[in-house]
Amino acid sequence: MSDDALPRRAGTYRTFYAEPIRVASAHGCTITDVHGVDHLDAYNNVPVLGHSHPGIAAAVHAELLRANTHTRYVDEHVDDYAADLLALLPQHIEDVVFTCSGSEANDLALQVAAYTSMATGVIVARRAYHGTTSATAAISPSLSPAPRDHVVPVDIPSASAPDFEAQLAARVRAAAAELDRRGHGTAALVLDTTMTSEGIVAGEHVRLPAVIDAVHDAGGLFIADEVQAGFYRTGAWWGFEALGVAPDLVTFGKPMGGGMPVAAVAGPRVVFSDFGASQRYFNTFAGTPAPLAAAHTVLRTLRDGGFGERVPEAGRRLGGGLTEVLAAEGIEAEVRRAGLMVGIDLRPAVGGDERRAGELAAALVEAMRARRVLVSRTGPGDAVLKIRPPLVITDAEIDQLVDALRGSLGDVGAGG
Amino acid sequence: MSDDALPRRAGTYRTFYAEPIRVASAHGCTITDVHGVDHLDAYNNVPVLGHSHPGIAAAVHAELLRANTHTRYVDEHVDDYAADLLALLPQHIEDVVFTCSGSEANDLALQVAAYTSMATGVIVARRAYHGTTSATAAISPSLSPAPRDHVVPVDIPSASAPDFEAQLAARVRAAAAELDRRGHGTAALVLDTTMTSEGIVAGEHVRLPAVIDAVHDAGGLFIADEVQAGFYRTGAWWGFEALGVAPDLVTFGKPMGGGMPVAAVAGPRVVFSDFGASQRYFNTFAGTPAPLAAAHTVLRTLRDGGFGERVPEAGRRLGGGLTEVLAAEGIEAEVRRAGLMVGIDLRPAVGGDERRAGELAAALVEAMRARRVLVSRTGPGDAVLKIRPPLVITDAEIDQLVDALRGSLGDVGAGG
Repeated sequence: MSDDALPRRAGTYRTFYAEPIRVASAHGCTITDVHGVDHLDAYNNVPVLGHSHPGIAAAVHAELLRANTHTRYVDEHVDDYAADLLALLPQHIEDVVFTCSGSEANDLALQVAAYTSMATGVIVARRAYHGTTSATAAISPSLSPAPRDHVVPVDIPSASAPDFEAQLAARVRAAAAELDRRGHGTAALVLDTTMTSEGIVAGEHVRLPAVIDAVHDAGGLFIADEVQAGFYRTGAWWGFEALGVAPDLVTFGKPMGGGMPVAAVAGPRVVFSDFGASQRYFNTFAGTPAPLAAAHTVLRTLRDGGFGERVPEAGRRLGGGLTEVLAAEGIEAEVRRAGLMVGIDLRPAVGGDERRAGELAAALVEAMRARRVLVSRTGPGDAVLKIRPPLVITDAEIDQLVDALRGSLGDVGAGG
Repeated sequence: MSDDALPRRAGTYRTFYAEPIRVASAHGCTITDVHGVDHLDAYNNVPVLGHSHPGIAAAVHAELLRANTHTRYVDEHVDDYAADLLALLPQHIEDVVFTCSGSEANDLALQVAAYTSMATGVIVARRAYHGTTSATAAISPSLSPAPRDHVVPVDIPSASAPDFEAQLAARVRAAAAELDRRGHGTAALVLDTTMTSEGIVAGEHVRLPAVIDAVHDAGGLFIADEVQAGFYRTGAWWGFEALGVAPDLVTFGKPMGGGMPVAAVAGPRVVFSDFGASQRYFNTFAGTPAPLAAAHTVLRTLRDGGFGERVPEAGRRLGGGLTEVLAAEGIEAEVRRAGLMVGIDLRPAVGGDERRAGELAAALVEAMRARRVLVSRTGPGDAVLKIRPPLVITDAEIDQLVDALRGSLGDVGAGG
């Protein structure tokens, strides 16, 4: 493969950046390209313990040399992981079903919710993303599929609105009424608990109790999609903890296996028993020992490694540094943050013009990349910088990230 | 965990056998339980190179210590695997898209077929199984979901019918006409190329050219589901090779990664380009280097290890041995076989009574397990023994399997 030709890839693939990163190796928060250039990874939430974590590699290797059979047989290692995961969840979340991907987890949660509620309608956020299977793509307006009759997206209020909860609850009630009118009823409200693709929605006003009451009143379940937020991303085990609610079903994915394909749905025992009695569910690769060994390493490391203190502390350093740089450069922007999940909303910087803010965000992502720091963008008009480093990011790396933003603002002519 | 208590598991899980196998370790074709008892694995098609293959373990370990990032970046190892896989497929199959599971592969193939055909109807075999996502469960009558308006199952003719092809083609034409009447049109005919859940349908009359003409005439695609049949199970790379046809889309799964969660869809370039231009598809764990390192080890070992001769030879030994035992014991049964995929249809043994044949099959599966040989059953009334060992099964193990059937026929009082 020559250095400047991109390999042939199916037309469904999209790479990041004008000039894609060609990975040679990755360790900790560093991705090294084929030219030997190091990049600070401030984007990836899958390698939550850092890239190429030796403990994960060793644990997977050991299981691949011991046994890696499926759940039609019994394997203590699998059941031990399930017990350890459930111990971290609210008491009414009693059972877990493994899948291979967050998409499969959300797809199964939808099937279970439809069975339990005897309804088919789903309420989601306006720009939600919940997966790539037919059923999860249908509830993912961010993929721009054709609008579906059984899906009603709701606008998420501004994170800074003091009546966030009441506003969103009213919209969910209206959405449920609309689903009733359409004859679907409400099976579920599905929410990424950091609302990542809405531009990251977090803060003291972002609370959900009245919202969940609204979906329960409509007969639906609240499915907390923790594929982005789970496993200490927000500084707590689960994103829903900061929202003042407990979910009916929880789905897990990306960081769960630290890079190995493993995901899950958890919920009350009776819900899975009822569903399982009527419908077979067997997933060949899901809940096999090798991916779960990775997941167990992630869980134990996060549980026993002081992440409950380290992530909030690192998050404050990162949030504070970014806020300071923006202020110093005279950029009006809203920094929204939950732990080490940060969104920098650039709309205020250009008088609220979403298109111009999106262009500024795009330019900054490329400028940061030129400065060898990897971030991305999301939200309305893709105008929100998305910064989401591995949880093991060091203070020095945080400072490097902040410096790169300072330099990049100058590079794109946005700084003071 | 005590020796006799089963661990708590969500109600969606079902284990094999009256007394489940509790796995301690697994190597080659042997699964060792927690009591130290060895079982000959004559069932699992995932560990195609045998359980705990050291080459797979080493390859995965190396990538987990190098880099295991996603397809938003470029990694030569990933593109090299894609090239090697495509080299084994017909020339018009030009591109591959990775997924985590066979379910996701079939789900994506359905999305692509619907986009390409501008239709939504799907024709499947009467007892088909194609996955557990909402969309693939909907086309899997074997899961007994509620019948769906956009799915028309067709009965598969007897493998011994000389006019198999014409019969099935007529049924597919009728199914397409029915989908037109219902307003769906025909997006695809989806077939497991060994028709495993129909009781394994293979033999000289099982040919598909006229069947594929029928689906093409209706504007639909032929999706060859190679999740069961692919990677030398049938003695050739792909199950469709024996059927005299080339598919429009091919899906891969189970054996592809030898136990690691990896699967794929392959098809013509233009099909993915058109789909990809209108719809985003990104799958976080799919096509990452670690699972693909396992897949690459499987591919290279099968390609360079003489499996093209060994599997047909082993299959003949197994088929011959089983047929001989059945004859010697005076059991009328139909042995249907493609390479190392064998179905023993027990209906003739009990005058065609499907219920009694199913009971006999169930008793034999348990009797074989008592003799420490693991097989299963499938097909109409679950009356067909399903025998599908790892492809590395030795002659001695084949003879052990055949002996266990002989003994088990006696154990259940079916022998002469």
